[in-house]
Amino acid sequence: MAAATEFDCLRVVLVAARNPLNIGAAARAMSNFGFVHLRVVNPYEAGFREARSAVGASALLASAEEYKTVAEAVADCTLVVGTTAVRHRELQHPLRRLEYGARLIRKQLGSGQVALLFGSEKFGLSNAALSHCHWLMRIPTCEANISMNLGQAVAVCLYELVRNAKAVRLEKVERAKSAELERITTTLLEAMRASGYLDRRPIADVEERMRRLVRRLNLPARDAVVWLGILRQIVWKLRSGRSRRAEAVKDAEVGGQPAIE
Amino acid sequence: MAAATEFDCLRVVLVAARNPLNIGAAARAMSNFGFVHLRVVNPYEAGFREARSAVGASALLASAEEYKTVAEAVADCTLVVGTTAVRHRELQHPLRRLEYGARLIRKQLGSGQVALLFGSEKFGLSNAALSHCHWLMRIPTCEANISMNLGQAVAVCLYELVRNAKAVRLEKVERAKSAELERITTTLLEAMRASGYLDRRPIADVEERMRRLVRRLNLPARDAVVWLGILRQIVWKLRSGRSRRAEAVKDAEVGGQPAIE
Repeated sequence: MAAATEFDCLRVVLVAARNPLNIGAAARAMSNFGFVHLRVVNPYEAGFREARSAVGASALLASAEEYKTVAEAVADCTLVVGTTAVRHRELQHPLRRLEYGARLIRKQLGSGQVALLFGSEKFGLSNAALSHCHWLMRIPTCEANISMNLGQAVAVCLYELVRNAKAVRLEKVERAKSAELERITTTLLEAMRASGYLDRRPIADVEERMRRLVRRLNLPARDAVVWLGILRQIVWKLRSGRSRRAEAVKDAEVGGQPAIE
Repeated sequence: MAAATEFDCLRVVLVAARNPLNIGAAARAMSNFGFVHLRVVNPYEAGFREARSAVGASALLASAEEYKTVAEAVADCTLVVGTTAVRHRELQHPLRRLEYGARLIRKQLGSGQVALLFGSEKFGLSNAALSHCHWLMRIPTCEANISMNLGQAVAVCLYELVRNAKAVRLEKVERAKSAELERITTTLLEAMRASGYLDRRPIADVEERMRRLVRRLNLPARDAVVWLGILRQIVWKLRSGRSRRAEAVKDAEVGGQPAIE
């Protein structure tokens, strides 16, 4: 995620939005992704600041700046980008796919304020509003239904701005060692023999095949301990049933009580 | 954008959604990004199919499938992914950032059906619902306001799935369906009980924990058949040892002689 100062430079500008719930939803998405400056040009309803859809973003919505014209709303910005669902416009702006456009915006955010314009739910940005834009950005929606909900369009655009090309993998799972997998294989084979499975369904090269079967599980180390414990208990029970004497499972071998998540 | 057949394999599953407008908004986002199969588990209001928010997606919403339980809703899926706003969970599922998780989903979409689960607006997915998931995916929201609107969360996740669709190589291995994994889970639990494992090492929430342990195996379909056969034989033997009478394992159920590689 970018530094707060960097995201501070973005102005989300909603032009002639009709539904206060959509303005609230836009505020919520901004808050979700770490943007704070909302500007509203000629909203259809004056009461938008109380929109209940701005969950967790009421302060952001309350501090939204209101403007009469697009020109005023983008006056202090060094880059103005319009969003559109349409592939071709009368005004021949450069039209960039969201992935690429967002990267250009990110570059610019370090050096000046950037306005990201969204039009009204019904008509999008007017040609007059578009004329203030340096270029346009398009979310890659399907031909069959190109028009997105305003709040959802804002969420998707801001997500792309936040999205880090070098995605960090959070997972750090330690996998089981081969020796542990081999113990599981051996014990599984014992269980198969003791249960009569192999008498009913003889398998050629059974050891190799079961070894591969167990390897394919790609077990995390902590799960391997659990599986081994279960299998050992099963083998013990199968044998004690047959031989009528109890061979105690050695808990020490199993490694004590494993934690199962 | 990917081929229609590929996106046909995704099931968007909304679990216990409260607001019909959010279900409609989810349908609209699906339609925007080329997804068609919506599943709804226990919606709060029956009238969700008429939600006016499904602009351009009324047919998709009308054909949504309704289920009573998560198990039924994901039974035919080979990969089940839960979405969450939370960074840390009690149940330690692998938690993947959206960028990376979406890539894994895309790979799987070539070979089987994938369920993408979204929880209720208020509480997200319950631990019971999460126990059906192979892993979790997190939208990288800010600490200050991690909780997204449901319709916006769906839009962002689907956008990420569509984004850069061409870059992903599809996986060819067919994975086990959830219904098969559930049978393995049930049989494993029987084996644990019959062997006395649970008497020696009682486990809290044992069903959910074993369900997740089995999901983490990420079993190929052909291996699932083998494991189920082994476990059923073990259970049969454990029981016959105890009760002194032979209950024949039904080969028909096991699916005959599986090929083990």
